[in-house]
Amino acid sequence: MAGDDSGAPDVAGLQRRLAEFARARDWGQYHTPKNLVTAIGVEAAELAEIFQWLTPEQSARVMDEEESAHRVRDEVADVLAYLLQFCEVLGVDPLAALSDKIDRNEIRFPVT
Amino acid sequence: MAGDDSGAPDVAGLQRRLAEFARARDWGQYHTPKNLVTAIGVEAAELAEIFQWLTPEQSARVMDEEESAHRVRDEVADVLAYLLQFCEVLGVDPLAALSDKIDRNEIRFPVT
Amino acid sequence: MAGDDSGAPDVAGLQRRLAEFARARDWGQYHTPKNLVTAIGVEAAELAEIFQWLTPEQSARVMDEEESAHRVRDEVADVLAYLLQFCEVLGVDPLAALSDKIDRNEIRFPVT
Amino acid sequence: MAGDDSGAPDVAGLQRRLAEFARARDWGQYHTPKNLVTAIGVEAAELAEIFQWLTPEQSARVMDEEESAHRVRDEVADVLAYLLQFCEVLGVDPLAALSDKIDRNEIRFPVT
Repeated sequence: MAGDDSGAPDVAGLQRRLAEFARARDWGQYHTPKNLVTAIGVEAAELAEIFQWLTPEQSARVMDEEESAHRVRDEVADVLAYLLQFCEVLGVDPLAALSDKIDRNEIRFPVT
Repeated sequence: MAGDDSGAPDVAGLQRRLAEFARARDWGQYHTPKNLVTAIGVEAAELAEIFQWLTPEQSARVMDEEESAHRVRDEVADVLAYLLQFCEVLGVDPLAALSDKIDRNEIRFPVT
Repeated sequence: MAGDDSGAPDVAGLQRRLAEFARARDWGQYHTPKNLVTAIGVEAAELAEIFQWLTPEQSARVMDEEESAHRVRDEVADVLAYLLQFCEVLGVDPLAALSDKIDRNEIRFPVT
Repeated sequence: MAGDDSGAPDVAGLQRRLAEFARARDWGQYHTPKNLVTAIGVEAAELAEIFQWLTPEQSARVMDEEESAHRVRDEVADVLAYLLQFCEVLGVDPLAALSDKIDRNEIRFPVT
């Protein structure tokens, strides 16, 4: 079964863990679409903050040091966590949405 | 193989499609970590814009009308697209990062 | 009187114009602190979008072309408009807040 | 002279203080338009974070407690600080930009 048996986590399995995590702490009351969409933006900004004063060259090397690498992975996790919870609350399938968008973009931006 | 044979898209398969899409259009030159992180924030804001002036009650019904439902799926796709491309460029595994984060949060926020 | 007689607009005068503009259109109902703070972020992202794919060198020249210069001024106006309306709704004096912050930062970051 | 003699700070005076503050610490090198626009977004998100999990009713009362009131003023100051520095670097007059925008909006959104 997807997300259950293999070692690698998948999106459906992570959504189940996030839903269970929130349920166990009674945090579902805060997870309105409007609050979750704000949270996505806040976490995206925390990810951006890492790069805020870096040159393009320094930005390309953020994974070389464990401290900044950890911070990047941590903020990526937060953006994804709130994006998946937002999708769960509204019944959006994020992978299907992206697949459909790529299909549309292949038509919209033809290779010349 | 994951993302290739089944009908449902997976993260690894979507990352391959996004990388191929950018490569075919020579857009890789724009995909620096700093630019991609800005793009994640811009798309997160476009998602937030849908909810900007709505009450919490109206926010819960955005998927009821096809126009706003499409817009939500479209912006979710854009946030996810840039998040996956950002991860690809920096060698971050977004699903492993989220799984690790949930592990840490289960310790940090014990169920009382 | 501040903002009334001279040719140059000032913050207090702009806040009065914004409040009157919203009142005349019955938009005050939408201007909750939570909605306005989202709007500040959305407009900040629209400003960021102008620079999203530019190199640092290209970014420094955005005011050279009238089209991008107009877009920059337009988005600066939007960020400032929502920031001033947010302050109005919550009774915050933005200029005093900034002056106090600079005072604190002069102590926090001494010149070496 | 504006911003010099009276007790109340004004935008031009604050811009001078911010420029002097950055100059004294040799921070001007970081203040590219692209970095400053990211900083505006990061600070706007820190302001939004205060309201992230609040109901509309709780949001309306953030100034009632000194701790959250201070946090709001502090983040308003940060958004305004980076917005003014962004304008300084690009030669944009933020008050004139907003005044012009209100003029345009009065035509675009006529009172019915």
